[in-house]
Amino acid sequence: MKSMSIDRLIDLIKKRSNPTVVGLDPKLDYLPDFILKNSFASFGETLEGAANAIFEFNKGIIDAIYDIVPAVKPQSAYYEMYGWQGVKALYRTIQYAKEKGLFVIADVKRNDIGSTAEAYAAAYLGETSVGDKRIAAFNADAATINPYLGTDGISPFTKLEKMVFVLVKTSNPSSGELQDLMLDDIAVYQYMASLVEKWGGGKTGRYGFSNAGAVVGATYPKQLEMLRKDNPSTFFLVPGYGAQGAGAGDIACAFNANGLGAIINASRSIICAYKAHGGTQADFAAAARNEALKMKSDINKALNA
Amino acid sequence: MKSMSIDRLIDLIKKRSNPTVVGLDPKLDYLPDFILKNSFASFGETLEGAANAIFEFNKGIIDAIYDIVPAVKPQSAYYEMYGWQGVKALYRTIQYAKEKGLFVIADVKRNDIGSTAEAYAAAYLGETSVGDKRIAAFNADAATINPYLGTDGISPFTKLEKMVFVLVKTSNPSSGELQDLMLDDIAVYQYMASLVEKWGGGKTGRYGFSNAGAVVGATYPKQLEMLRKDNPSTFFLVPGYGAQGAGAGDIACAFNANGLGAIINASRSIICAYKAHGGTQADFAAAARNEALKMKSDINKALNA
Repeated sequence: MKSMSIDRLIDLIKKRSNPTVVGLDPKLDYLPDFILKNSFASFGETLEGAANAIFEFNKGIIDAIYDIVPAVKPQSAYYEMYGWQGVKALYRTIQYAKEKGLFVIADVKRNDIGSTAEAYAAAYLGETSVGDKRIAAFNADAATINPYLGTDGISPFTKLEKMVFVLVKTSNPSSGELQDLMLDDIAVYQYMASLVEKWGGGKTGRYGFSNAGAVVGATYPKQLEMLRKDNPSTFFLVPGYGAQGAGAGDIACAFNANGLGAIINASRSIICAYKAHGGTQADFAAAARNEALKMKSDINKALNA
Repeated sequence: MKSMSIDRLIDLIKKRSNPTVVGLDPKLDYLPDFILKNSFASFGETLEGAANAIFEFNKGIIDAIYDIVPAVKPQSAYYEMYGWQGVKALYRTIQYAKEKGLFVIADVKRNDIGSTAEAYAAAYLGETSVGDKRIAAFNADAATINPYLGTDGISPFTKLEKMVFVLVKTSNPSSGELQDLMLDDIAVYQYMASLVEKWGGGKTGRYGFSNAGAVVGATYPKQLEMLRKDNPSTFFLVPGYGAQGAGAGDIACAFNANGLGAIINASRSIICAYKAHGGTQADFAAAARNEALKMKSDINKALNA
């Protein structure tokens, strides 16, 4: 029998002793000049030139970290801003990361009514019919989704039996405008978390977690702690570490007594590490690896404290 | 001075006497066999073959309706499910529709934290820097966006001074799971509508509407009526007409006393009209035009009743 998607993710986390995910958010500003120069020399200052540079950068990062981190999370916005050419770079990045054995979370935050949510689910996690063929358009292992439309917008994803991470309490400053509002005696984010537990359908894998995960920001550690206690079978994707301001001390509460239950994302702090540490641009990949190892060590220390 | 985006839309609606938008949701199942056959003959049963067929279909629909409707709304999911090749067809569709003078609403329902929302806004409504160049990746006139993350996720769009339609009360059956919940004395959707009025920034155009619009489903006419009264400067994009079940009688309340305030979307009922009316597949474009004219007539009758 095929492993549940959540079990594959947790197996990888345990194998690498590393509950972190590297966010691949390759804005051109983040890329070393030599990669841009090479790509523009071949393709000009065009969207194709940008997309090619992005893929070369991602390849360098993936080659440097695939043996020490379990997962990557490409943020779709940073590909879409470079047009369909950028979306092609997203596709190539997902396939390359999967070839290297990484678990790939497509950070797309898609949402729509039922029939349209089916199309999105097919795009990122499933297959599309083309004549007599079935083709996986992006073929990621997991996707982030937005719950504003309720169950109709979620079930087309969950029925594919891959993993989803539903936005519950996001890491940004204004997340409370809707998410913290009180419904009788609980906040919107607590209510949404209870829906996610329900969307998991009570189907848990070898580690007690379901395929329906939640996005909960490290920038709100109190809420993170409360959500961990209230939703034992929901696995958390935790953004906000590093560049957004949260540190290792803020994320211990995302994990249960077995040291499981969350994967912590860092994007800029890893992929732009070469800028922060005064290394040369040529060392961007080595700098990313060093920073990923430091993050692993910091988080494991916090979990064992 | 450049016209406000909302004024351009309303000018087009008045010029055509037609407050409707045709949803371009080109699932392959919806396309006439001859278009698929031609495209597969050139490109095989591939994502490229699918994408090429989609563009040919859209071109036929656009050619048949551009002089009678003011706007089209491509639903991104039905392009993304055909991979980056499908996203290229989305790009080509947007450019072709704009060449024909149509106002293009990119139905992408994007949402993310501030820095990432900036990337999405650049992708669909703005420009992206590539070296010394500035390139408009998709260059739509408006985009749909999801408000779950609050102001941070919205302001990168609104500051571009194009139009946005923020999800408020969606047309699907489970929309009430979150949107109808009560916050003290108002429902979540009412509260979100009040945020949209705020996001409009009090900057209204010649017709009294701002660039911050709202998505409100025709399938909930009571809520639609209430929202119209409470939010006078918010223009509505109204899905749910036709295939989703709402009729002309349900949408009159989306308009104000001047007969303005909303644009009604129909997708399948127009683009698949050739299936419903027993026409031949070759007449798909003519059938779409007839159905669009019928919808225009039905809606104008309801507005004048």
